Amino acid sequence: MQEILDDIAEVMSTATERGQVADYIPELAAVNPNQFAISVALPNGQTYSSGCAQQLFSIQSISKVFSLTLALGKLGDAVWNKVGREPSGDPFNSIVQLEHEQGKPRNPFINAGAIAIVDAIMMGHEPKELLAEILQFVRFIANDNSIAIDEKVALSELATGHRNTALASFMASFGRIEHEIPQVLGTYYHQCSISMSCEQLARSGLFLVSDGVNKSTGIRVVSSRRARRINSLMLMCGHYDGSGEFAYRVGLPGKSGVGGGILAIAPNKASIAVWSPGLDKIGNSKLGTVALEMLVQRTGWSIF
Amino acid sequence: MQEILDDIAEVMSTATERGQVADYIPELAAVNPNQFAISVALPNGQTYSSGCAQQLFSIQSISKVFSLTLALGKLGDAVWNKVGREPSGDPFNSIVQLEHEQGKPRNPFINAGAIAIVDAIMMGHEPKELLAEILQFVRFIANDNSIAIDEKVALSELATGHRNTALASFMASFGRIEHEIPQVLGTYYHQCSISMSCEQLARSGLFLVSDGVNKSTGIRVVSSRRARRINSLMLMCGHYDGSGEFAYRVGLPGKSGVGGGILAIAPNKASIAVWSPGLDKIGNSKLGTVALEMLVQRTGWSIF
Amino acid sequence: MQEILDDIAEVMSTATERGQVADYIPELAAVNPNQFAISVALPNGQTYSSGCAQQLFSIQSISKVFSLTLALGKLGDAVWNKVGREPSGDPFNSIVQLEHEQGKPRNPFINAGAIAIVDAIMMGHEPKELLAEILQFVRFIANDNSIAIDEKVALSELATGHRNTALASFMASFGRIEHEIPQVLGTYYHQCSISMSCEQLARSGLFLVSDGVNKSTGIRVVSSRRARRINSLMLMCGHYDGSGEFAYRVGLPGKSGVGGGILAIAPNKASIAVWSPGLDKIGNSKLGTVALEMLVQRTGWSIF
Amino acid sequence: MQEILDDIAEVMSTATERGQVADYIPELAAVNPNQFAISVALPNGQTYSSGCAQQLFSIQSISKVFSLTLALGKLGDAVWNKVGREPSGDPFNSIVQLEHEQGKPRNPFINAGAIAIVDAIMMGHEPKELLAEILQFVRFIANDNSIAIDEKVALSELATGHRNTALASFMASFGRIEHEIPQVLGTYYHQCSISMSCEQLARSGLFLVSDGVNKSTGIRVVSSRRARRINSLMLMCGHYDGSGEFAYRVGLPGKSGVGGGILAIAPNKASIAVWSPGLDKIGNSKLGTVALEMLVQRTGWSIF
Repeated sequence: MQEILDDIAEVMSTATERGQVADYIPELAAVNPNQFAISVALPNGQTYSSGCAQQLFSIQSISKVFSLTLALGKLGDAVWNKVGREPSGDPFNSIVQLEHEQGKPRNPFINAGAIAIVDAIMMGHEPKELLAEILQFVRFIANDNSIAIDEKVALSELATGHRNTALASFMASFGRIEHEIPQVLGTYYHQCSISMSCEQLARSGLFLVSDGVNKSTGIRVVSSRRARRINSLMLMCGHYDGSGEFAYRVGLPGKSGVGGGILAIAPNKASIAVWSPGLDKIGNSKLGTVALEMLVQRTGWSIF
Repeated sequence: MQEILDDIAEVMSTATERGQVADYIPELAAVNPNQFAISVALPNGQTYSSGCAQQLFSIQSISKVFSLTLALGKLGDAVWNKVGREPSGDPFNSIVQLEHEQGKPRNPFINAGAIAIVDAIMMGHEPKELLAEILQFVRFIANDNSIAIDEKVALSELATGHRNTALASFMASFGRIEHEIPQVLGTYYHQCSISMSCEQLARSGLFLVSDGVNKSTGIRVVSSRRARRINSLMLMCGHYDGSGEFAYRVGLPGKSGVGGGILAIAPNKASIAVWSPGLDKIGNSKLGTVALEMLVQRTGWSIF
Repeated sequence: MQEILDDIAEVMSTATERGQVADYIPELAAVNPNQFAISVALPNGQTYSSGCAQQLFSIQSISKVFSLTLALGKLGDAVWNKVGREPSGDPFNSIVQLEHEQGKPRNPFINAGAIAIVDAIMMGHEPKELLAEILQFVRFIANDNSIAIDEKVALSELATGHRNTALASFMASFGRIEHEIPQVLGTYYHQCSISMSCEQLARSGLFLVSDGVNKSTGIRVVSSRRARRINSLMLMCGHYDGSGEFAYRVGLPGKSGVGGGILAIAPNKASIAVWSPGLDKIGNSKLGTVALEMLVQRTGWSIF
Repeated sequence: MQEILDDIAEVMSTATERGQVADYIPELAAVNPNQFAISVALPNGQTYSSGCAQQLFSIQSISKVFSLTLALGKLGDAVWNKVGREPSGDPFNSIVQLEHEQGKPRNPFINAGAIAIVDAIMMGHEPKELLAEILQFVRFIANDNSIAIDEKVALSELATGHRNTALASFMASFGRIEHEIPQVLGTYYHQCSISMSCEQLARSGLFLVSDGVNKSTGIRVVSSRRARRINSLMLMCGHYDGSGEFAYRVGLPGKSGVGGGILAIAPNKASIAVWSPGLDKIGNSKLGTVALEMLVQRTGWSIF
């Protein structure tokens, strides 16, 4: 495994087409695009890495997997009253679908859906409490209390978040947001601004590898059925309108973030995190996708 | 003329299908639907009325004609960099068109367009100054200093304005809003909350009857060419996605508001205001449209 | 008047930006773009012209005004069960609106609407009979029995008409087309392939100038009310998604065709035909629009 | 396995909500809705069945998997110039997406995409030859020469196929269809009208279970990589805008047809066919989906 990862990192170090760093969030635009890391966590707790796998980066939309998991734990299937579970066929920040479907987001992984999820789990909480709970949950599943929020990134998102304000306000106009929009968005931006390294991120996905149980710690996070369904949602919707392409090329459930990270799950085999800040046109890590494609070819881990 | 108006008011007083009062703005929902008024102002200053033509009502979107006129005076054709001049084919508060056209509203009379106009004329002003200027302009063209803003309506709109926040934020995400959104929307809601009677409203349209000059006062408000173009925009876009229907049935440039008012212009003949709070499905005054249809049939004032 | 038209023709003869000749119909693509003609027909029967006003050209979509008039005569308001009367906000050949509105075209002047009109008036006719009737009607209103169909253009359209087949088939899938599609489209293409000169075209619009009566012949074609409503539809929808622009710049009801012709009506004043084959991006005659703008400025004929 | 299938068939026999039989194709509307069958084919060639598993039914859109496989074999990745591979987020017969994306269908499993695939593989063939080749290919992968086309169903589709004509004509208007539309559609309808039993259908999917090889016959149909990618496409797009729901509930790549059949693939485990004619609102077999959900729960075959 170490050899495979080193080979991949070697190839990536000389890649010339590395995509574009996200530029709409100023803090992210400043990240050096010439970085690459990959980590593979096995159910037994072993972790293999190559590249700068301890380097922290902003997990951004990957956090939506964790907030969905938390929401399913707190609300059960009532979550599906708030969001659907179909691919959207539109960009991550599209508002057209919302107008056509009465303000209900297609799935929990587009921005509107993730904002609706934050609103759903805010019930009975102060924003700060909820944020603490989300962070605590991420630390819990990653088994690492050092994980923290990058406040500078959160503020940077807040300052440039007109599109997300539009999405939240639009849902609110259909009566679908129950809390104050600035509080919902503030929590959402902070959740997206969690910083993790590839090693931490890979370990945080272990519960999705083994039917809801992190076998390295023995802790059950969600039921077997729910874990499989989260994986299904990641496959169908985890890469916005590039989800079909990712499924075709990589063949694993995965969730990308505009920070350049991707978390991918090979059921019963491994949790994988890759990071490279340059994005393709749709907003998914360009080298990250290539690296996962190589990894799957070498390991035969495709679910298909 | 008085006889015609009295006949119309008589018919309207017994109408049973009066439409629905706008219910999404609480202050408007409380208005008694059994009211009707009509006023006709002639270029020579004479005014004929029937029904409760001194009763104040919220002019709402009719104010968009005045803010557009003001914007054209201040900015000239640069206004058309902010908004287009095509019918939208969509409801007044649709956001779909904005996503398809990079955040540029189709015309100045849909909500997004009117918000963009407020943003455009805010340049170099405090919101309160701008609001004072808009109100002053309306008083000027109506030649009536008693015209005022109904603060309760403005607050009522503010409290329920998620959709407008969505529209403004969405435009802002394309870099098309230059001022703080709460200030732009606050000004917009106050502008919409101007109260006028049918008599006042009819007189305020006189400059559009006579090529830009209010002949009763002798004051030129806009150039001849601009007056005709404002009339053209009213005809094409003044009734949202019911504009074709209004042109077909009434055949006059007009602008409706969800308060139940309509301002219609018969070029070289008269400025007409009608008011009845019940709306049709598209959001235009139901009896107001019927009354105008009757008036045009009796007077032959159709522009076609 | 003659002087005005000569001035306009003079300016047009040196224009350098003449637009693009329609290239999707091979027969039309072969037309020399350096041609220009303008004719003004007055209610008293006098006609003024400048440029090549006897040159025949393909009237294309201008024919939709005549088929609508015929349909209203045969079916009355039942026509509105087949098509709406709102601007579409979409290109002339868009199919999106049809899917959103259950196969009912927005208005009779977009392609789908005109095809639906042909289907409506085909009732009880063989296609050839109907075609003869349409041609006869055009000859009647133009008071000119020499008007004919250019069979080569019709065949050229037939050979490249996939988009229109799509529109007709799509409407048929909603049960909105009652006759065989090839027959409906064949009739439609032939109707569009009527050839007329500017002089003939200007005369054919006289009934719309004087409330339904061609005053030069004394013949009533339609009722006063219907004539005004046809004018209203031309203003709202006569130039596809450039209708707002045409109303703004020219201020007259008008209908354009991709052959480069425009018929415009100045109510109570004149019927005007212009022709120049080069089109703007939306598909309306570029110089034709400029010429009408000049004419209206010189004559003050704007309806606003 | 037999016990599991019998249990499932037992439950299905008493189900009361069985969905609606497809009514837009007359021949299919006549099928008795109270039928159910399930077959499981293992890589070693063993087949287990319950219900009326020898009963022939119209495979309809399931045939799209076979024509795509054939197209990939003949044209390789050039297929992706004709169609995309993203979920569409729209109904199976939507035309809106085509207008927004220049006539290129989102994926090979919506109607437009499947029609484009037939057009692609028609190259150099007479329609009858191509049809023979498709049928031969299905017989080959199912290892059963008795499989045939139901001509009555094909004619029934032809007679009611306005929507498909619209889709094909619309693509043709973008230059994306190279053959005569009636020939392309005729071939498409015949391909959809292949009749198979659940047992035959289950066996026909075996090559997708074992990386492109039908292990029971030892014949390689496609490369390992291609087989996995076909599975990926089935998962992402195999159930139209119900694909997310199917992935969530069943967790297997699958393709449905409006005849009520579903082919599902459990990689390395089994090929499964279910049939029950009643459809849900989206057009997928209602009981078929429930049966697969039960099967996966009993066997743990979810790919997630």
